[in-house]
Amino acid sequence: MKICVLGGDGYCGWATALYLSRQGHTVSIVDSFVRRQWDFELGVQTLTPIRTLPERLRVWKQLTGLDIQCSSGDITDYAFLAEVIARERPDAVVHFAEQRAAPYSMIDRQHAVFTQVNNVVGTLNLLFAIREHAPDCHLVKLGTMGEYGTPNIDIEEGYITIEHNGRTDTLPYPKQPGSFYHLSKVHDSHNIMFTCRIWGLRATDLNQGVVYGTTTDDVALDEALVNRFDYDEVFGTVLNRFCVEAAVGEPLTVYGSGGQTRGYIDIRDTVRCIELACLSPAAPGEFRVFNQFTEQFSVLELAGLVQTAGAHLGYDVRIEHLPDPRVEKEEHYYNAKHSKLLDLGLEPHFLSESLLDSLMNIAVRYRDRVDKSLFMPRVNWRRTRNDRRQGAGVAEPPLDISLKS
Amino acid sequence: MKICVLGGDGYCGWATALYLSRQGHTVSIVDSFVRRQWDFELGVQTLTPIRTLPERLRVWKQLTGLDIQCSSGDITDYAFLAEVIARERPDAVVHFAEQRAAPYSMIDRQHAVFTQVNNVVGTLNLLFAIREHAPDCHLVKLGTMGEYGTPNIDIEEGYITIEHNGRTDTLPYPKQPGSFYHLSKVHDSHNIMFTCRIWGLRATDLNQGVVYGTTTDDVALDEALVNRFDYDEVFGTVLNRFCVEAAVGEPLTVYGSGGQTRGYIDIRDTVRCIELACLSPAAPGEFRVFNQFTEQFSVLELAGLVQTAGAHLGYDVRIEHLPDPRVEKEEHYYNAKHSKLLDLGLEPHFLSESLLDSLMNIAVRYRDRVDKSLFMPRVNWRRTRNDRRQGAGVAEPPLDISLKS
Repeated sequence: MKICVLGGDGYCGWATALYLSRQGHTVSIVDSFVRRQWDFELGVQTLTPIRTLPERLRVWKQLTGLDIQCSSGDITDYAFLAEVIARERPDAVVHFAEQRAAPYSMIDRQHAVFTQVNNVVGTLNLLFAIREHAPDCHLVKLGTMGEYGTPNIDIEEGYITIEHNGRTDTLPYPKQPGSFYHLSKVHDSHNIMFTCRIWGLRATDLNQGVVYGTTTDDVALDEALVNRFDYDEVFGTVLNRFCVEAAVGEPLTVYGSGGQTRGYIDIRDTVRCIELACLSPAAPGEFRVFNQFTEQFSVLELAGLVQTAGAHLGYDVRIEHLPDPRVEKEEHYYNAKHSKLLDLGLEPHFLSESLLDSLMNIAVRYRDRVDKSLFMPRVNWRRTRNDRRQGAGVAEPPLDISLKS
Repeated sequence: MKICVLGGDGYCGWATALYLSRQGHTVSIVDSFVRRQWDFELGVQTLTPIRTLPERLRVWKQLTGLDIQCSSGDITDYAFLAEVIARERPDAVVHFAEQRAAPYSMIDRQHAVFTQVNNVVGTLNLLFAIREHAPDCHLVKLGTMGEYGTPNIDIEEGYITIEHNGRTDTLPYPKQPGSFYHLSKVHDSHNIMFTCRIWGLRATDLNQGVVYGTTTDDVALDEALVNRFDYDEVFGTVLNRFCVEAAVGEPLTVYGSGGQTRGYIDIRDTVRCIELACLSPAAPGEFRVFNQFTEQFSVLELAGLVQTAGAHLGYDVRIEHLPDPRVEKEEHYYNAKHSKLLDLGLEPHFLSESLLDSLMNIAVRYRDRVDKSLFMPRVNWRRTRNDRRQGAGVAEPPLDISLKS
């Protein structure tokens, strides 16, 4: 298939692009490299020393003989995006090209507005570009399990059949997202569903759990292909962060009691799920939703697993409970369905197998690059302004001072 | 109470500002006047000759002795909005300051993106401004019944209790909005609900039905206070349009079979509902939802009522069925709850009383100003580009031509 990966220079996008390429698909990447810019903004960097995209693609071609084309630009620029879709006419577009960190969206008003405008406008542009230039193209959109929040009933895959006052309908599953970022994904889902209805677009929304790990067979081919591994409090997903904390002898930073339960997925399963979705496209007019995760854990369970794995490697891993910087339930019911991707043939990797290989060993290998100051949460959901500016940058004057005369 | 009316120069906003002022509240208006600009863009104008806001306010002061302050600016400009909220510290903010026409949002990509960015960013800014400068202020936000779509079960007021696999939870009512505009309101609702949760804001979301009429006791005081009366296919709500069509001897433009059933409300009830919401504010942290309409009608029922009222005035009113330019169910179940505002004391005006006085007579009185070319729908939901540019304006070249080389 001809597949266009938007955000193909990012964490999930890069691994996906390589995997699809190796499976024989014709892959092209679209990226604006703004993800790398956010690292500079926040003064953080990936644990693994990633190369530039041109270098990555050159090495990939040398090793495998496979070409991956790249278009450099921002999908909020419609003229650029429309030109790409019109030129490529892909069978599927895999859309990772969004700001994807909840804490980043909660830094302050600018970051909240940026996240929602960036994500919503990019996705709207994509919907129009597909309709105008490749109407049969299958949109594979990355959503998040965080769109659902933590309801007190089972979480279904996108829709729920409700019986109410003697009548029945199957409706979009109610959403209770937990950050301005998660909200942006809910907005996207509603927009996509609508265009499937009015224009007959075909789309699959993959509500992904928290992704962990960095190694896939493809990125493991060469050091130059190494994937991002974020461990900082803004972009680092919890399991990656725990492993790095363990590797450098710092306590695991558990927010609150640690009873927060979520779905998790190995990045090797992420890339396979994407291909499965592409190979079995949604029907014209269909807005299909898969919950893309393989196991559920509470944060404290994860901390315990990392503690055990660390002990295996001779590390004494402590667990520290911090006041939760997020506003979320620390203890709650959680039972989310995730059978549709299994039905399509997914054979999951389980955390118990990969914790040492794909996580702890990577963390240990690159431990010299760790900046311990990046572990502690500095973005508090309860505040409208969290200072994440680094060094001597000139901060905007606080609004209150300049306005009250 | 001290009440700030955002969008106070618009159709609902103007009537609301006057009503609240006459009830003894201290009212201020914030408006960017972009609504008047959209008339120029589309080549349309209100049936009634409205005056400039300064003139309106001068006459209001002369007639009643009551002051209404006005701040001229756009709420997507945070510095401006924050200054207003910090200066006024209102008890309540009534938020009408959004692009409110479904067809406008469906003209093309630019209008879709504009509508969602304008509405979502304006509301996000307002949430931050309230949190930072008036955290106890009650946000009264205008939503729309169109957020719900037309589910096959009863529509509740904002939330629904779902029993599922032996467990129960009360969750946000699932939304199936029918245009990029309606989607923007759904995005707003999710954003507001979230900030009530994380910051303890207090908000009431008024999911309003289709508003009809123009006359309230206050705007009737003087010709200079006359309210907007939109009848064009983009901004004109259906009942206003029907009355104008009847008054000039044109057939009523019913989309499709006319079985589309919606909630309707007299503008005199709109203004009262707003005050009722202000007088009984939501609790801190509460996101409260009221369905703000008084009666349900199908479009064909409305056409029949206008036909009868027209006959009363000696007009021979025909009904024309047009292909529906919208993508919507033409026949469907519809039963929406709307008891919460009645519980607060609303005494509804019913259409049967006001059809002649508040609608047909206005239409007849200003019939010389009618532009019949504005009745026929020109914005089709199925197209990504609807040409609504007037006259000799230079249209963007179609993208397909300039891009394919």
